[in-house]
Amino acid sequence: MKVDLKKLKKIVGKDNASGDSADLYVYSSDASVHQAMPSVVVRPKTAEEIQKIMRYANKNKIPVIARGAGSSTSGHTVPIDGGIVLDMKRMNNIIEISSQDMLCKVEPGVVDDDLNRELKSHGLFYTTSPASSKIATIGGEIGANASGMRAVKYGATRDIVLGMKVVLANGDLIHLGANTRVHSSGYQLEKLIVGSEGTLGIVVEATLKLVPLPKFRCLAMAKFNKLEDAGEAISGIIASGALPSMLELMDNIGIEVVNKSLDLGLPDVAAILLFEADGNIKEAIDYEMEKMKKVCEKHNGFEIEMSYEEKERKRLYAGRKNLFSSLSRYKEGITCTDLADDMGVPTSKIAECAHEIHEIAERNNVIMAVYGHCGQGVIHTKIMMDTTKKEQWDDAKRVVEELYDYVDSIGGTTSGEHGIALSKAPSWKKARKDLLPVMKAVKKAFDPNNILNPHKLMDAPDDWVTATNLRYRVR
Amino acid sequence: MKVDLKKLKKIVGKDNASGDSADLYVYSSDASVHQAMPSVVVRPKTAEEIQKIMRYANKNKIPVIARGAGSSTSGHTVPIDGGIVLDMKRMNNIIEISSQDMLCKVEPGVVDDDLNRELKSHGLFYTTSPASSKIATIGGEIGANASGMRAVKYGATRDIVLGMKVVLANGDLIHLGANTRVHSSGYQLEKLIVGSEGTLGIVVEATLKLVPLPKFRCLAMAKFNKLEDAGEAISGIIASGALPSMLELMDNIGIEVVNKSLDLGLPDVAAILLFEADGNIKEAIDYEMEKMKKVCEKHNGFEIEMSYEEKERKRLYAGRKNLFSSLSRYKEGITCTDLADDMGVPTSKIAECAHEIHEIAERNNVIMAVYGHCGQGVIHTKIMMDTTKKEQWDDAKRVVEELYDYVDSIGGTTSGEHGIALSKAPSWKKARKDLLPVMKAVKKAFDPNNILNPHKLMDAPDDWVTATNLRYRVR
Repeated sequence: MKVDLKKLKKIVGKDNASGDSADLYVYSSDASVHQAMPSVVVRPKTAEEIQKIMRYANKNKIPVIARGAGSSTSGHTVPIDGGIVLDMKRMNNIIEISSQDMLCKVEPGVVDDDLNRELKSHGLFYTTSPASSKIATIGGEIGANASGMRAVKYGATRDIVLGMKVVLANGDLIHLGANTRVHSSGYQLEKLIVGSEGTLGIVVEATLKLVPLPKFRCLAMAKFNKLEDAGEAISGIIASGALPSMLELMDNIGIEVVNKSLDLGLPDVAAILLFEADGNIKEAIDYEMEKMKKVCEKHNGFEIEMSYEEKERKRLYAGRKNLFSSLSRYKEGITCTDLADDMGVPTSKIAECAHEIHEIAERNNVIMAVYGHCGQGVIHTKIMMDTTKKEQWDDAKRVVEELYDYVDSIGGTTSGEHGIALSKAPSWKKARKDLLPVMKAVKKAFDPNNILNPHKLMDAPDDWVTATNLRYRVR
Repeated sequence: MKVDLKKLKKIVGKDNASGDSADLYVYSSDASVHQAMPSVVVRPKTAEEIQKIMRYANKNKIPVIARGAGSSTSGHTVPIDGGIVLDMKRMNNIIEISSQDMLCKVEPGVVDDDLNRELKSHGLFYTTSPASSKIATIGGEIGANASGMRAVKYGATRDIVLGMKVVLANGDLIHLGANTRVHSSGYQLEKLIVGSEGTLGIVVEATLKLVPLPKFRCLAMAKFNKLEDAGEAISGIIASGALPSMLELMDNIGIEVVNKSLDLGLPDVAAILLFEADGNIKEAIDYEMEKMKKVCEKHNGFEIEMSYEEKERKRLYAGRKNLFSSLSRYKEGITCTDLADDMGVPTSKIAECAHEIHEIAERNNVIMAVYGHCGQGVIHTKIMMDTTKKEQWDDAKRVVEELYDYVDSIGGTTSGEHGIALSKAPSWKKARKDLLPVMKAVKKAFDPNNILNPHKLMDAPDDWVTATNLRYRVR
């Protein structure tokens, strides 16, 4: 694709635009299985620069893909058609923090943990907390509607975004939302932009709702000899009216994986549940924890450990925290791929779904651990396989198809928090045929020339395996 | 407008469609100042009936206006161009209540209080709580993104809607959202539909997030001799990190109005603050109440009364509860009009805004009380005037213009919870010019023939006084 690099350098400065193949390679993939080379990489610093870039791109019908940390597991930032990748990380100013209005205004390149470090000194807390919060940018979290372990209490990014400034495909800058916790002033397009995967506009500023930083956190670990029992405990905890600030599951494969690769000495049981309550009143947290403990015991949870101490909480959480990284170190020749990695299912169906995942994996010669943010119905898994073997990709494809057909059959949804992009598009499109025409019409309303992250979501290719190059060498 | 009544009777049954002028008159106005006659009124019972009606209307370009209780204060349900009014109240089934998944599925005609009565037996709570909850339907709350007194803790309808079934302008039925607390499966159009004022589709089923019914509620009343002090207390409470489940303001005019018309013997002070905390742990509520009480005292709040007892809480809340109805009984020849009735402003600006409202009212020969859900930045007021006098309507028009220019200047928003529709459209359009093109494009994507509640919101006339007939006799 022909892109005028000189023109772009004029806009952002010569050091902030590159067509150098080494640079381009870095931006050709994210945490997904996909890989495709951009034409150029641009690192804008201001909304005005982005407006100029969009006007140029729109006039010349050049794809523009906004990118934060590149931690997407589904291929959001892979430039399937080449074009301009916008690295947003230079736009990393925290513009305003207001305790009186319990909100902050930030640029999209601000990193999640950096924001919370700053907010801590104000006694405030930004609640989106993906496992990748060390690197994840607010802009990326908005693109995917990220949530993470605390969404069971605090909701996802969409629930937290009060407003934003957005540069549209035609270069216009619009201001969405309000500085109030609620508003009814017209279509709340700020909520539509969250989770739109960079296909509707480029977010250049976000207004985020904050909560008081909890004084106390108490974390507990319960062991189960039957996965069904752990599942019953999850829906039991939700039904009990308890308000966990975290409710996480790990199955026996996950436990084995962590023990093998980290030697954490986790108990060799069928499942582990981690549950947390947070707040400013210890009595209230004790009450919540006791309530959840009783539910676990009722469903044969045993050896329940519980602590307010950070050190102890870290120990109890270590297995869950390191699970993802452990998966890739599980076995020589076995690679962990981010596929079918975050389906959402009703909390009442967690155990049943975990079982089904194990059976599907076995049937198809791959390994799949089951874990995740089960309090909000988000199940995580990965497909672990020999990525050098063509047949294993066929196995993986079958797994993804069988799994999502099942998820659909129990009233679940394709993605709980990572998004659709490329890897999940075929399954999602199959499940939600009814939505495609109206989503395409909305996309056209925002982006008539289809330059914003094209060929993703409803416009993605029907076969994820061949949608792009794979990020792996396949013999 | 030519509408085939016989055809419609065939679809919904002869008793559920009417062109009788007496029936039409009932549906020609809502709680707003506006009035316009529909061509026919139809009372559908099923989604299938609505699909048939929409196919007919779309083919013949006939406006369709969905209506719940008709409690809109801005003219949402006034059929400005005639056409078909869909009375949704017959679709009032509670389809499912699930404690295990903490959600329910309802038809749009279900009344808010009826739903909560039913949920109570399950220990559950639907948190949207407008003053009109006795009559307001879920469908209407979705149309306006209603919120009410508890939104400071629980958010607005948009935060509560997890999914919905919607009939589009072309008659297609689509299923939006998920059965999980979070999802990232494509554009979350269910959030876009909430607050779209019936302009994008007809909601025929909604999936709502529930919370456990709080065991305890504690309500307090604080008195202030200066409105500014009450305002400082509001932002102080928010900044303190307290979690009120209600935070309400009443100014001296509101107090006078209630005392005059109800003789409640409220104290003759500059302002009253009502603050509540709810939950299942008394210690936690005590902590929150103590925290808020201290902030009020710091800002010269005095004679702070507090109670957990329902009877006492009712007494403390009586003034606020009856304020709206009292306003219309304030003075012979003075009528209370729903104009400029729910602006949203940052909590840090509440006091300043209350002052400005008083000054604008005085300048323009009308009476305006200030009250509202100040914890979430929603200020309520009404314009009280002699509606028989043409000049007073000119005064009201000036008030609305001056007030919203001011609200815009302090980073506020036109509507906090009632919506834009007709009365607020000119002010909102003036403040948010930048949004009009993209909102019109989105509308076109959903409703190319512009039949769904046409001429509202971004398409509303520029002068609300002449947009329709007025619901009052003006000499």
